[in-house]
Amino acid sequence: MDDRVISKAVISRLPRYFRYLGDLMRNGVERISSKELSEMMKVTASQIRQDLNTFGGFGQQGYGYNVKYLYDEIAKILGVNHKHHMIIIGAGNLARSLANYTGFNNFGYYVIGLFDHNPALKGITFNGIPIRMLDELPDFLTHINVSVAALAVPKHAAHDVAQFLIDNGIKAIWNFVQTDLEIEFPENVVVQNVHLSDSLMQLSYAMTVAEREAQQ
Amino acid sequence: MDDRVISKAVISRLPRYFRYLGDLMRNGVERISSKELSEMMKVTASQIRQDLNTFGGFGQQGYGYNVKYLYDEIAKILGVNHKHHMIIIGAGNLARSLANYTGFNNFGYYVIGLFDHNPALKGITFNGIPIRMLDELPDFLTHINVSVAALAVPKHAAHDVAQFLIDNGIKAIWNFVQTDLEIEFPENVVVQNVHLSDSLMQLSYAMTVAEREAQQ
Repeated sequence: MDDRVISKAVISRLPRYFRYLGDLMRNGVERISSKELSEMMKVTASQIRQDLNTFGGFGQQGYGYNVKYLYDEIAKILGVNHKHHMIIIGAGNLARSLANYTGFNNFGYYVIGLFDHNPALKGITFNGIPIRMLDELPDFLTHINVSVAALAVPKHAAHDVAQFLIDNGIKAIWNFVQTDLEIEFPENVVVQNVHLSDSLMQLSYAMTVAEREAQQ
Repeated sequence: MDDRVISKAVISRLPRYFRYLGDLMRNGVERISSKELSEMMKVTASQIRQDLNTFGGFGQQGYGYNVKYLYDEIAKILGVNHKHHMIIIGAGNLARSLANYTGFNNFGYYVIGLFDHNPALKGITFNGIPIRMLDELPDFLTHINVSVAALAVPKHAAHDVAQFLIDNGIKAIWNFVQTDLEIEFPENVVVQNVHLSDSLMQLSYAMTVAEREAQQ
């Protein structure tokens, strides 16, 4: 595994393969051909073969892919083959919807903490998780290993809170704030941005193109 | 505008330019060089020049880009230069966090309706918006023009509700359900998926790579 170099483009497609393979496994499917997978996923069979070959997911002619093998290999590559703890910073609606969503458990991610700075929320339990104050975080982290912090705070607080997380040893930030975090990240800290505004603008563009085409 | 072909890669980067240019404008900046923009956005100046040239955003040597001109051009391309109405299907935490987020107003998107099928929620007002029942939607749409429906319903309901939206003339679906919508979309209907699970898996991968590198 360690020596394989997999292109960014393939990596970006792996979560989708993982979702489909998981569904197939849960439905008791043991083998699938690239043609069948291609029809399900609406990508070409050659794209699938090419993508899966990059990490040794070789199908056999007339026999297809072993669903569980592929699923496990992709899980290893994505690092979702073991349990991870996630905390959520912020306790608003977005934070609560993340805490509420159990689908992350399917690939080993469990929300174990909600942190906010508003004293009025202290001790309120949401979905079985008590809301803690941000200044309790350093102590919390000495007792339990946390892989990911989801950042769902107001924009004006984002930079300070992100810096606070990094100073306290958080290595992965899932950023839901509608801003790029412009701080110097240490090399071993990774950030994944979820820019909902950007996503809505992409949709807006697609809509504009479709409208224009309809008028022609 | 209509005849320009802009690559998907450039389009995917435009929302980020739009965000930065909007911030600059609000801070009273009138002109910016590709070098300055490059430092702010942490992409190369040549990438910026190349991206902006594709739609005629020519900077002048020693003079830079006109911030407002660029902003307006990108707004036109993305279709965010006029007001759009958005409705949200579902009234759970995610739906509420979307209804709560006023940042979409910055580029002309306004949430004007929340729809659910749970009679217990009927008439409850969230953020000034009354929750309506899904079967009221067809009538609602005869009175008001809706550009986008954000889909935030449970997974098992996603396909039926999406079909219902399309049958009632919705042309753009912003899909927050953690599933690909496997229905036959008419050609003039566009869908943008927000797969949070996929995003978390990408982060998980980056984290795995960073950990491996730290061990070497």
